[in-house]
Amino acid sequence: MHKTLWREIKKEKNYLLAGKPVPRLLILNAGSRNHLIRCFLKSWAEQGEIIVSDSYPLAPSLYEDCRSFIIPFYKHKNYTEAILDLCEKQKVTGVLSLIDPDLSILSELKTEFASAGILAFISEEWIVKATFDKWEMFKVFEANHIPTVKSWADLSEFLNDVKNGKAGYPIMVKPREGSGSRGLHYIESEETLISVWNNAIEPMLIQRWIEGRELGADLYFDIYSGELIEFFIKEKLKMRAGETDKSVSLRDEKAENLLKRLSRNLALYGPIDVDLFITAHDDYLISEINPRFGGGYPHAYACEADYPGLILQNMQGKHLTEQKIKWQSGHYMMKFFDMVFIDDKTRRNAGEEIKQQEEN
Amino acid sequence: MHKTLWREIKKEKNYLLAGKPVPRLLILNAGSRNHLIRCFLKSWAEQGEIIVSDSYPLAPSLYEDCRSFIIPFYKHKNYTEAILDLCEKQKVTGVLSLIDPDLSILSELKTEFASAGILAFISEEWIVKATFDKWEMFKVFEANHIPTVKSWADLSEFLNDVKNGKAGYPIMVKPREGSGSRGLHYIESEETLISVWNNAIEPMLIQRWIEGRELGADLYFDIYSGELIEFFIKEKLKMRAGETDKSVSLRDEKAENLLKRLSRNLALYGPIDVDLFITAHDDYLISEINPRFGGGYPHAYACEADYPGLILQNMQGKHLTEQKIKWQSGHYMMKFFDMVFIDDKTRRNAGEEIKQQEEN
Repeated sequence: MHKTLWREIKKEKNYLLAGKPVPRLLILNAGSRNHLIRCFLKSWAEQGEIIVSDSYPLAPSLYEDCRSFIIPFYKHKNYTEAILDLCEKQKVTGVLSLIDPDLSILSELKTEFASAGILAFISEEWIVKATFDKWEMFKVFEANHIPTVKSWADLSEFLNDVKNGKAGYPIMVKPREGSGSRGLHYIESEETLISVWNNAIEPMLIQRWIEGRELGADLYFDIYSGELIEFFIKEKLKMRAGETDKSVSLRDEKAENLLKRLSRNLALYGPIDVDLFITAHDDYLISEINPRFGGGYPHAYACEADYPGLILQNMQGKHLTEQKIKWQSGHYMMKFFDMVFIDDKTRRNAGEEIKQQEEN
Repeated sequence: MHKTLWREIKKEKNYLLAGKPVPRLLILNAGSRNHLIRCFLKSWAEQGEIIVSDSYPLAPSLYEDCRSFIIPFYKHKNYTEAILDLCEKQKVTGVLSLIDPDLSILSELKTEFASAGILAFISEEWIVKATFDKWEMFKVFEANHIPTVKSWADLSEFLNDVKNGKAGYPIMVKPREGSGSRGLHYIESEETLISVWNNAIEPMLIQRWIEGRELGADLYFDIYSGELIEFFIKEKLKMRAGETDKSVSLRDEKAENLLKRLSRNLALYGPIDVDLFITAHDDYLISEINPRFGGGYPHAYACEADYPGLILQNMQGKHLTEQKIKWQSGHYMMKFFDMVFIDDKTRRNAGEEIKQQEEN
């Protein structure tokens, strides 16, 4: 059933075609991002190889039409060693990850990867780490004069600002290291705030409540220069279980100008996912940065913002310059569930790939 | 962009091919069930026509490769009239719905549909209505000696049973008319139970807490005789936001025998979705019946339990008898997000289909 074995053999032969290694990208913890893997396969055609990995044999992306490996869970003590080992054995020339816990790991290993001739598509360590803590990120935004949602990490400072008329209710209270909709509290009074604050089991953050439109943006920064190469902006039309279910592309000059300010100061490299707000008063704010492909990136790809193609060019050693924007407003994306079906033998084969890897 | 216009014309010509109407199935409120629509299109090939409808122009299923119509929202006062009108104008010969609020409506109209020569793939009104209320359903299961999860709709009866040693904690408390994971309470003490019960804003139900394995089954009952024709059973391996994310097919004699007891007494017709438990003590229980295609039905289809094919045969006037089961244990299903992309013009075209329909 593993129809890609022939491909493995073919690619092995081609590895040093014309004296140059074939670009080989290892995608770590691809989970259920099958659609993104398909964007890569389509964009790359036969110009290089995509290798998919996950720690869970029932991750549907493992069954896309490319070679796949089971890797240890990211918390495993040998995780880093296993990844580096896999890269070496599979002659990987580029690496990126689709899950947040990997991002710090990759950013720490960036130099090590580089010395092994592997491009890691990841931003600088300090910004990667800042994006995990909403309070750290708020300070980074402020220091770089990037408009964002006013935040407080200190209860008495907030209460003082209320007293001085510099703050008011309603507010959002959320974990500093939360994600999705975990631990969100919409709060309208001091009494509730104090009760939530005192009962929190992790560091919390107070944020001004924003009434307005939610946008998402997909950006690509050249892996060598850190210059913004291309961007795509969509308005979020409908959310479902914390994810964008429907969106529409949006050319908007103010939002575009704001994104362009996420320049080299922020040390962003490769694919980046950004959340924005347009407030009821037509203020534009950046609320969050995720230094990886966002879940809705395929919308950008469908509108010809081809980041897998840019990654391929970077892996071929090309330094990129700003691309002409092709997409327009009014292109809609709607999600639905597709499914992968496999028999038990195929599943066991996926499992065997680890064993092989461990035995080699 | 509406590539199916030619198909419409072609089908119009074929409508009375060989003196018989072409089977035409209208699927109401198909929402984001694109994968199911694709099962129908694949199974039916060119033997009939699938027509998809939804009230929301951004329902992704509207953009599958078949004709689609925007219908009123199900709460709209003209909903029934609009559906009947659409059926007449589009020479529909069969109808089914994918959302729960439609099921009662369809079951009430079953005779009216029949007199217009339209087969409604829906169970009898009384059982459809019972499935909406967990307490009604419990009584139906008890009356038919079908093992189910012990339930109480009366607080003092439950407390009395605790006193007599016939009941105990933990329990689940849930709305009688709830669905998904809405309003669920896992309760371990009388004190919490009384507080939850007294603060509930809708009728609640107490259920014994079941520790065990969760199964799902997809059944098909002949639309004429109500006989069980075919079934598919899967074990739920992973849930996500109230939906089955990963499952595996399971041949299990006890579960199969239990499903076979859902016979004509229950007045089930067409496609049915059933939830089961295997308790830690190896008891088999049926916990819920949904008289429609379940969200995970494509798993059954991938294992050759072809209910769209059975629906086609029923629409061709064939009475069905029990089918030989082809599927085996160990076939896995894993969900991932796929996406539909459309431009603004296509979206507006979908909208225009209502207007046309309203103007005609």
